Amino acid sequence: MAEEAALRAQAEAVRRLKQDKADPDEIAKEVTKLLEMKARLGGDEGKHKFVLKTPKGTRDYSPKQMAIRERVFNAIITCFKRHGAEVIDTPVFELKETLTGKYGEDSKLIYDLKDQGGELLSLRYDLTVPFARYLAMNKITNIKRYHIAKVYRRDNPAMTRGRYREFYQCDFDIAGQFDPMIPDAECLKIVHEILSDLQLGDFLIKVNDRRILDGMFAVCGVPDSKFRTICSTVDKLDKMPWEEVRSEMVGEKGLSPEAADRIGEYVQLHGGLDLIERLLQDPKLSQNKLAKEGLGDMKLLFEYLTLFGITGKVSFDLSLARGLDYYTGVIYEAVLLQQENDHVEEPVSVGSVAGGGRYDGLVGMFDPKGRKVPCVGVSIGIERIFSILEQRVEASEEKIRTTETQVLVASAQKKLLEERLKLISELWDAGIKAEVLYKKNPKLLSQLQYCEDTGIPLVAIVGEQELKDGVVKLRVVATREEVNVRRESLVEEIRMRTGRP
Amino acid sequence: MAEEAALRAQAEAVRRLKQDKADPDEIAKEVTKLLEMKARLGGDEGKHKFVLKTPKGTRDYSPKQMAIRERVFNAIITCFKRHGAEVIDTPVFELKETLTGKYGEDSKLIYDLKDQGGELLSLRYDLTVPFARYLAMNKITNIKRYHIAKVYRRDNPAMTRGRYREFYQCDFDIAGQFDPMIPDAECLKIVHEILSDLQLGDFLIKVNDRRILDGMFAVCGVPDSKFRTICSTVDKLDKMPWEEVRSEMVGEKGLSPEAADRIGEYVQLHGGLDLIERLLQDPKLSQNKLAKEGLGDMKLLFEYLTLFGITGKVSFDLSLARGLDYYTGVIYEAVLLQQENDHVEEPVSVGSVAGGGRYDGLVGMFDPKGRKVPCVGVSIGIERIFSILEQRVEASEEKIRTTETQVLVASAQKKLLEERLKLISELWDAGIKAEVLYKKNPKLLSQLQYCEDTGIPLVAIVGEQELKDGVVKLRVVATREEVNVRRESLVEEIRMRTGRP
Repeated sequence: MAEEAALRAQAEAVRRLKQDKADPDEIAKEVTKLLEMKARLGGDEGKHKFVLKTPKGTRDYSPKQMAIRERVFNAIITCFKRHGAEVIDTPVFELKETLTGKYGEDSKLIYDLKDQGGELLSLRYDLTVPFARYLAMNKITNIKRYHIAKVYRRDNPAMTRGRYREFYQCDFDIAGQFDPMIPDAECLKIVHEILSDLQLGDFLIKVNDRRILDGMFAVCGVPDSKFRTICSTVDKLDKMPWEEVRSEMVGEKGLSPEAADRIGEYVQLHGGLDLIERLLQDPKLSQNKLAKEGLGDMKLLFEYLTLFGITGKVSFDLSLARGLDYYTGVIYEAVLLQQENDHVEEPVSVGSVAGGGRYDGLVGMFDPKGRKVPCVGVSIGIERIFSILEQRVEASEEKIRTTETQVLVASAQKKLLEERLKLISELWDAGIKAEVLYKKNPKLLSQLQYCEDTGIPLVAIVGEQELKDGVVKLRVVATREEVNVRRESLVEEIRMRTGRP
Repeated sequence: MAEEAALRAQAEAVRRLKQDKADPDEIAKEVTKLLEMKARLGGDEGKHKFVLKTPKGTRDYSPKQMAIRERVFNAIITCFKRHGAEVIDTPVFELKETLTGKYGEDSKLIYDLKDQGGELLSLRYDLTVPFARYLAMNKITNIKRYHIAKVYRRDNPAMTRGRYREFYQCDFDIAGQFDPMIPDAECLKIVHEILSDLQLGDFLIKVNDRRILDGMFAVCGVPDSKFRTICSTVDKLDKMPWEEVRSEMVGEKGLSPEAADRIGEYVQLHGGLDLIERLLQDPKLSQNKLAKEGLGDMKLLFEYLTLFGITGKVSFDLSLARGLDYYTGVIYEAVLLQQENDHVEEPVSVGSVAGGGRYDGLVGMFDPKGRKVPCVGVSIGIERIFSILEQRVEASEEKIRTTETQVLVASAQKKLLEERLKLISELWDAGIKAEVLYKKNPKLLSQLQYCEDTGIPLVAIVGEQELKDGVVKLRVVATREEVNVRRESLVEEIRMRTGRP
């Protein structure tokens, strides 16, 4: 009885939450509790209201979506390999303390695992911190690697715009002590190559340097202790207007209005080599050691980018800040300049599709002796790219094949299942991609329809007569042309007709 | 933990200031800050014992391991595609209740996520339950798909034998209402193809049927309520001798000694079509409806396997039970028959490398109206396969390349960084896989050494004279042959010499 009272109380709690239009997550949690209680009690009808869904902010990929995903991955991996990268992989979770203190204000978005005895674990938040842990753990001081894997953030998902809680990152990083800005320039070249290859429309790569930002904060009168938090606020400039950013600085973060206004002047600036030269002459900035270092390197970077022929799409932008704590030098972010469609509510907020920068201190945070390994890298945020390409495929009515099957083994008469199985076995063993309908006596028409539906180009038809003659009837689905092929030449003929030697 | 990270950062800041011989006042200020932080943390010397490791039962993959992993994946994916499979993907975690009640005694090994507000989540335990959830959710009644992804089990890891807590599964499944045993036979053909392709040595595919097992339990006098738990115990026969299994049945599970002994007689049996025929005549089994059905289908299966020419490696084995609850018909498991090396303590316990079976009820557990979608599938357990191939590579001293770089852009003289960058940019844009050392003035010898170390076959050398003459010196690393190539023909020449058009 006590349990039933608890059940009624829980049902009432759920009713109230729904009435109050509470946070859907909270409602879901309480409903789950309620269902569990009902299940324990046996329930009058035992009907369990099971919620058939993927977790909030996640999704399945259908075969068609996977086909698009594979295309994007191929373009990206081809580029990473073109630049001589090796590949590594790390576990999906890390010791909780590995992630602690690396992400600043974003740490609250980390997924923790339940303490079930043993170590405390968290799902990886990005691929950069696991990479740094990997380098320190294996005492690697020199590597160029890529890593493509899912990362996890308990963020507010906006799935229509390609923002998920589980999403892929495609990271390329160069670790090692090298001459300034050469690896940094290569990272930007890579972003340029990938975004050009994918033909997503016009894009812009914004570049800045944490040292220039910190120097700017110093000369604007921001106290040292507020550098990181003010940096986080500047980072919101791509999502909100200056006035709001300013009021967060002054209101929430307690910055003086004068300092905020001085920042406001700088963060409007963007340009190329000319702007860098101008700022190198800036009476205040040029007096700051950090800013001067950053500007000097920025100049070098732009010289290399000129050799790569990509300065046309790169903008030195003082408003770019990047949220994460671990950057120490150059930072960058690529944005698409136009939307693929017009259905988007906020045409201004064009999401970033790539970002990265230099993080020279991160590996040292893991090394027992604090030995540093300078690193620079870039992360391609492909969920947004998927969304765009998916919409484009929908719009174009392009028919995407989700299998590579070359031939369907069919029969026109009954009682030929054994013969179909014998033939398909021969084809598989010869490396031909082949299918057969799992029916004893399928109709020829439904076999041909299956080819139409799935894009299989050829049908190998066995029949009594063909078996007697030692041939197979090969039908071209598109033209309905049929030709008898000697059984021993069938593999050869299929290879030739499908262009796969 | 965040405080300790801050402490380390502060200690590092002090170290740097000292190194840079900064203003003594500033150093003193920062040292004071450091001491205050240490005092707050309590620790006598602030030494933080950070454990630099991956979570228990998990591992990183180095570039070399990744190269081996890619080979195995390619063999498996090629086979899955040869059989016309599409591919899907699902999130790494599911709603906890999605996994509840699907795995029997293994449920305790599921990783739960911490309740941070919102839904209760668990890491996927296999790819089969998410697949069934996917089918029910999208009302798919007919699909042939593969899915390659990591799954998670809080098991006792035995990593030297390829048993991990995070490990890959490569699943191939056929869902749909078809004529009996045709898809089931294809799954076994796939196991046979993959294990043959990978050349892992001799193997055996054991086959049984849950209906035969249940029929056997019934005629042996096992009460209905004990079928699943006795099945779990029978499943241990590959890891422990019959005597131990028997004592678990009688002692822990409370089965009568007579029933256990009757089971003992059956589970010794294994064979082919002859055994199936014999059991179809067995006075007890043949009277049991389930067993009869199972044996009839087993006969049909072996007929199809004969057409596929693979009965030589398939054994009908009454001791095979498989641990998971959701199987309803045919079950199978592939084992390697000999170890690759002699260092293994327990030569008897040769792990399984593939397993699967028919699960006709699982999708219905997710469907609100209980609509069933019959399914059969197979999972390739590739961790063990990796281990074997890795050991083999180690032993053979085969040199595995971890990049595909075709050419290193180098220079023999100083001050040619710009020329190297210009040339490599041209090569990248033409699709050539190229690298450059990130040094302003690297020595030619160290550039050549880099090629030796990483297996890059060609070096494109720019020098003052070459620039004047409009040529590039192309050096073949293996033969030290050098030839001047006109700059406009360089791409062509590299493609030709590396056999990549």
